[in-house]
Amino acid sequence: MSPEQIAFNNSEAAFLALFEPKGIVIAGASTHPGKFGFVSLHNVIASGYAGKIFATNLEGVEVLGIKTLPSLEELPQGEADLIFVCTPKSANLDLLRSAARKGIRAAFLTSAGYGEAGEQGQKDEAELVELCKELGLLLVGPNGQGVISTPAKLCAQIVAPYPPAGTIGIASQSGNFVSSFMNWSCATGVGVSRAVSAGNAAATSVGDFLQMYSHDPSTRVGLAYVEGIPDGRGFFDQMKAVALKMPLVVIKGGSTAGGAQAAASHTGSLASDDRTFDGACRQAGVTRAATVEEAFEAAATFATQPLPRGNRVVVMTTAGGWGVVTADAITRDHDLDLIELPSDLRESIDAYLPPRWSGSNPVDLAGGETRDTIPKVLELVASHPQVDAVIYLGIGIQSNQARMLSEGPFADDPDVARIVAYHQRQDARFASAADEISRTTNKPILTATELAVAFGDNAGPATVRGTGRLCYGSADRAVAALGHLWRHSRYRIRRGLPLLDACPAEFLNAGGSSHEAGSD
Amino acid sequence: MSPEQIAFNNSEAAFLALFEPKGIVIAGASTHPGKFGFVSLHNVIASGYAGKIFATNLEGVEVLGIKTLPSLEELPQGEADLIFVCTPKSANLDLLRSAARKGIRAAFLTSAGYGEAGEQGQKDEAELVELCKELGLLLVGPNGQGVISTPAKLCAQIVAPYPPAGTIGIASQSGNFVSSFMNWSCATGVGVSRAVSAGNAAATSVGDFLQMYSHDPSTRVGLAYVEGIPDGRGFFDQMKAVALKMPLVVIKGGSTAGGAQAAASHTGSLASDDRTFDGACRQAGVTRAATVEEAFEAAATFATQPLPRGNRVVVMTTAGGWGVVTADAITRDHDLDLIELPSDLRESIDAYLPPRWSGSNPVDLAGGETRDTIPKVLELVASHPQVDAVIYLGIGIQSNQARMLSEGPFADDPDVARIVAYHQRQDARFASAADEISRTTNKPILTATELAVAFGDNAGPATVRGTGRLCYGSADRAVAALGHLWRHSRYRIRRGLPLLDACPAEFLNAGGSSHEAGSD
Repeated sequence: MSPEQIAFNNSEAAFLALFEPKGIVIAGASTHPGKFGFVSLHNVIASGYAGKIFATNLEGVEVLGIKTLPSLEELPQGEADLIFVCTPKSANLDLLRSAARKGIRAAFLTSAGYGEAGEQGQKDEAELVELCKELGLLLVGPNGQGVISTPAKLCAQIVAPYPPAGTIGIASQSGNFVSSFMNWSCATGVGVSRAVSAGNAAATSVGDFLQMYSHDPSTRVGLAYVEGIPDGRGFFDQMKAVALKMPLVVIKGGSTAGGAQAAASHTGSLASDDRTFDGACRQAGVTRAATVEEAFEAAATFATQPLPRGNRVVVMTTAGGWGVVTADAITRDHDLDLIELPSDLRESIDAYLPPRWSGSNPVDLAGGETRDTIPKVLELVASHPQVDAVIYLGIGIQSNQARMLSEGPFADDPDVARIVAYHQRQDARFASAADEISRTTNKPILTATELAVAFGDNAGPATVRGTGRLCYGSADRAVAALGHLWRHSRYRIRRGLPLLDACPAEFLNAGGSSHEAGSD
Repeated sequence: MSPEQIAFNNSEAAFLALFEPKGIVIAGASTHPGKFGFVSLHNVIASGYAGKIFATNLEGVEVLGIKTLPSLEELPQGEADLIFVCTPKSANLDLLRSAARKGIRAAFLTSAGYGEAGEQGQKDEAELVELCKELGLLLVGPNGQGVISTPAKLCAQIVAPYPPAGTIGIASQSGNFVSSFMNWSCATGVGVSRAVSAGNAAATSVGDFLQMYSHDPSTRVGLAYVEGIPDGRGFFDQMKAVALKMPLVVIKGGSTAGGAQAAASHTGSLASDDRTFDGACRQAGVTRAATVEEAFEAAATFATQPLPRGNRVVVMTTAGGWGVVTADAITRDHDLDLIELPSDLRESIDAYLPPRWSGSNPVDLAGGETRDTIPKVLELVASHPQVDAVIYLGIGIQSNQARMLSEGPFADDPDVARIVAYHQRQDARFASAADEISRTTNKPILTATELAVAFGDNAGPATVRGTGRLCYGSADRAVAALGHLWRHSRYRIRRGLPLLDACPAEFLNAGGSSHEAGSD
């Protein structure tokens, strides 16, 4: 790409045209609900996009209540700045010329048959890039899946889902992973700001999008899937610049010989040395995840927890066995420290628990908890100056029994109803306490239970979700996420970068808006 | 334990008394819905247990519609064979003597204050064991959480949940893990036959239960959590005998220095060398899992997939990027082989797909699929003699868009309703095809999508669930499970043990009974 094109791609005008358009045109709208030109128009309307919506269709028929334009010549001047292209390849050069004349500044192309389709396709793609450069158009794709921007309520995409609003910015070389990340966002409630599938990335790459996000006030964390990296040095310069501004989580496909061969067939990516990539990530302060779930959960943790100032972890549990496997997981992460419980902290906890509690880390309450013990002990632990992060286990167990009572044959018994409500109130309170204490201490407190997956409406995990945070499906996952959090934190500390910017309180709760909020 | 006690514990009479009792007594029933003596009685009634239910309460009050007995003396002779004990420790010796006189053969003790509670508790526990031996009672616990037996619809447990019926037999040194495994069972629909928390395991250990399960026709797979193993040699002799009869999945807490310290505090377990344990598992044909999810999913896979006869894996995907990371995951598992696609198989697939399909493994359909392509190509792949197992990706994507259409403002449009129904029918059909082809070829076909977690009612994963199988939340998880499946298979092949016993067709679908069945 030429320096001018790079400058334009990184300009605020291009960014706004793509992610905050005042109007959008779906080119190639269709009346057939199986076609991209129908689905994408539907999704734009269904997501509640508030800007102007136009569509073109050769016959000018009505599609989804919109009177389509037979050609772009009919488009009012200056009312749309993004064109979402579902037309066949042959139509596109003329289409883009007309679009530019009407004031459009960004084009997302779903059309296939370009760089992924042999020599002729590659020639056509080069021509496309050249034209967009001439026209001053930000070109995204071709062969892309779509663009999401929750601040603009925009879902210009040929597939579902539309995720809850939040602060994670997604960029991917593969549309599937945009969908997967957003499905995880729907599942967990931790939301997304912007998402884009780069398709063939003819003019705008995953790295370019991540750079845009790093300047975007709505995005606090980057999350990317990459396969091959044609310009390794350039990509890492970008990644490094991004990671100085915000946490960045990357998963790389084609890391093994088998995967690299698959990637060559999928996106024509070249194999790269996996250890080189790993080392470069570490050097650039980039969080590399091994799986899609791990990547999403790391990003969701960056988005919803403060960065720890050190690696000293305490586990608090009302479920003994879970304390043991969590201690194993922390010990296996060689960067985290399952500290010996400071004696003054042990003594303060002694005042609240019968002597059978563990007296050590994990702090196992061993059934000694009463009404107020859990919030109190959690506060003691998290407030201690020698503790940097807390993992809290055992939430929701009583509410799970409450569910069984409320679904059982005695649900109407007033005593039963009373205990059901009591358990639910308590678990909600514990979840809110974890959130509040994390805010007041500015330390990460990660809550984990498989009930988040098995019975998501359990008052414990549901309240965690309501506070805008991720309720981890297992302690192992919480530890994996905390390890990533700490390594990025350490990167920033060593470079004298501020920690607190990473997750200001006002960005919490963004993802919880569509769900019942906790009682904080 | 004495040889007589071992013989009795392993007797069919003891097994039946615990897991198939004709009648049960809850000792210490309470009117207070927060007490164990209330909750356990409730759960027995709520689960639909068909045997006789008795309860004792010093005041003989009515609890949950049951007229309690002031003492066991009032219990009709020979009508109950299991006593579930929620009384304080001090009452228990007399209680058990009375129970034995009334024909009770098994006792589950939730009562605390025994071996876990210092020197006096240990003395009391020894006395308890001695008495049960004298009385010919199978003693489970004390300090246990409960016992589940789905063939008897029995949920004698002080906490939720009650899982769907199935063929996984659970035994655990920690009640939390019984709950966690069963919550995963509820979440995935892959069901449980028996489950027991061994508590202090005073007379009956996790190994004893697993041995019972290996003789139990309702149980096809063992799933265990262990912490410390006082008698390593004895435990492994048991494990080895069990693994010869059925697959056995174990997760061990206290595998690291940090975890071992936590285990010492939790169950008083001694540290054991982790590599020794690992080696012993391999030697005994036992599947060792690193996390609770991995353990459950390995067991669920053994319960619902045939064992592969080799390690040759083909990935079939309609989602390109996912093929790449799945190829990575298979390559990273050094025991599985991402084979080069046999040329005759490639040619047969050529007949059904446009030339842009990958032509290699992963078989990436690259959007070339039509109405019948997916079942057809899946059948070609799975039927090929050089293929031992298949991982199928991309299911549910269209139904996820269908969900967005059906929740959108145009849901009532007949064309929209038609495409919604079409996508759902197709995804259901693909899931059914994967199930049927797995049955006819007797090869494992594992279907993975995060939609199983994010939108469980999606026609794709919902139909997988309806066929009784696990729909994996990610390809990485499916690969991890398949690796475990193959390693156990290899263990059996090398020893000349039959493979087909491991998962006969009639045991499939047991877990899906409470859910909408697929259209097979």
